[in-house]
Amino acid sequence: MLTVSDLGAAGRRADASGDAIVAWAGRRGYEVVVRSVVPDETDRIAGKLARWADSGEVDLVLTTGGTGLTARDRTPEATAAVLDRRAPGIAEALRAAGGRRLPGAWLSRGLAGTRGATVIVNLPGSPGGVTDGLSALEPFLDHAVALASGARTAH
Amino acid sequence: MLTVSDLGAAGRRADASGDAIVAWAGRRGYEVVVRSVVPDETDRIAGKLARWADSGEVDLVLTTGGTGLTARDRTPEATAAVLDRRAPGIAEALRAAGGRRLPGAWLSRGLAGTRGATVIVNLPGSPGGVTDGLSALEPFLDHAVALASGARTAH
Amino acid sequence: MLTVSDLGAAGRRADASGDAIVAWAGRRGYEVVVRSVVPDETDRIAGKLARWADSGEVDLVLTTGGTGLTARDRTPEATAAVLDRRAPGIAEALRAAGGRRLPGAWLSRGLAGTRGATVIVNLPGSPGGVTDGLSALEPFLDHAVALASGARTAH
Repeated sequence: MLTVSDLGAAGRRADASGDAIVAWAGRRGYEVVVRSVVPDETDRIAGKLARWADSGEVDLVLTTGGTGLTARDRTPEATAAVLDRRAPGIAEALRAAGGRRLPGAWLSRGLAGTRGATVIVNLPGSPGGVTDGLSALEPFLDHAVALASGARTAH
Repeated sequence: MLTVSDLGAAGRRADASGDAIVAWAGRRGYEVVVRSVVPDETDRIAGKLARWADSGEVDLVLTTGGTGLTARDRTPEATAAVLDRRAPGIAEALRAAGGRRLPGAWLSRGLAGTRGATVIVNLPGSPGGVTDGLSALEPFLDHAVALASGARTAH
Repeated sequence: MLTVSDLGAAGRRADASGDAIVAWAGRRGYEVVVRSVVPDETDRIAGKLARWADSGEVDLVLTTGGTGLTARDRTPEATAAVLDRRAPGIAEALRAAGGRRLPGAWLSRGLAGTRGATVIVNLPGSPGGVTDGLSALEPFLDHAVALASGARTAH
């Protein structure tokens, strides 16, 4: 999982959103293979995403941060650069669920899709946004990962 | 209407989803001008869509299949290659309606839009997904076809 | 704010949708810096959007018209040509709110995003669509403009 944050990368802010993802992954039975914090720089973000997806060892990459409307927010552009295929419905589901609770959730520009057999999903940056986003993903995320990774599913 | 299915094209699976579309079209008073089954191959899908749209005899193309996250699912990419203009709201409406009943509907990567005067909509592959999708389209599909084809509408 | 309308630009139709936006802006305390009516021509639309955004004097551009499925509707394509970054959730929120009241709202192909520090949002063409759209935007629009323009926000 990748946290995108200038302050986080500079060691000036604790990665509470990343912690929330790791705690959630533990409860869900996902193994967190790798975790990193990078600044809001397109190349740094895209590099991590591509390397992890292409390693063959990561079924799912969740990012947090950098999806908003400020000049520094570049996570969607970095993600677009590395995705093979877009899955717009995953991003729509995140925003529709988040927007019901907090209208600002509609402002997330996050993308989702696949690179090879890896699912990549951009979550919002705030711990609350991460928690809402993970709840929205839960009903279909296992299925998405199984389809993309080629695993057989009963569905 | 176009069914995208490796098994269907090989004659190894009955086209239940295509049958559901044809039955629906009959109830709605649409004439099914042409029906075909192709494998999950981008060029084959795109070729059919372009030929039908460019024939001037087809107001609406509904596809079923190939919108998911497995490595073989290529219908959205083939559709993107032939669309002149995207109509993202049609795809959003399909997923929002489907996702309320079955969370996996958010995983459909289907697109919609126009090529010339023809409306093209990607429906999911399962008969249930087709049925839910057609229900979601009904309130605005006639209007969409009329606008795209240049017919005068009262609206 | 920009009204896109062949009839409006020819002086053959009053700009009721533009009037609705101006009235709304007044109630919200926005200053309308510039207002114009252009025909449904991609270059004319894109030219206005780019010039206004690049002037440094416009925080928000709202367009009305040209987002439908007829052959003349080109506002989304013109908008795509000038946006630096897409904000798909703003367009999704508009359609989700509009579609609940009027199914035809799903047919709007409108986009939203930023060019530099300016937020650009495509609203539907009808006065009713504009009113519904502005209501849907209200909960997050100030926040969007503040983020894009670099203003500090408490959020």
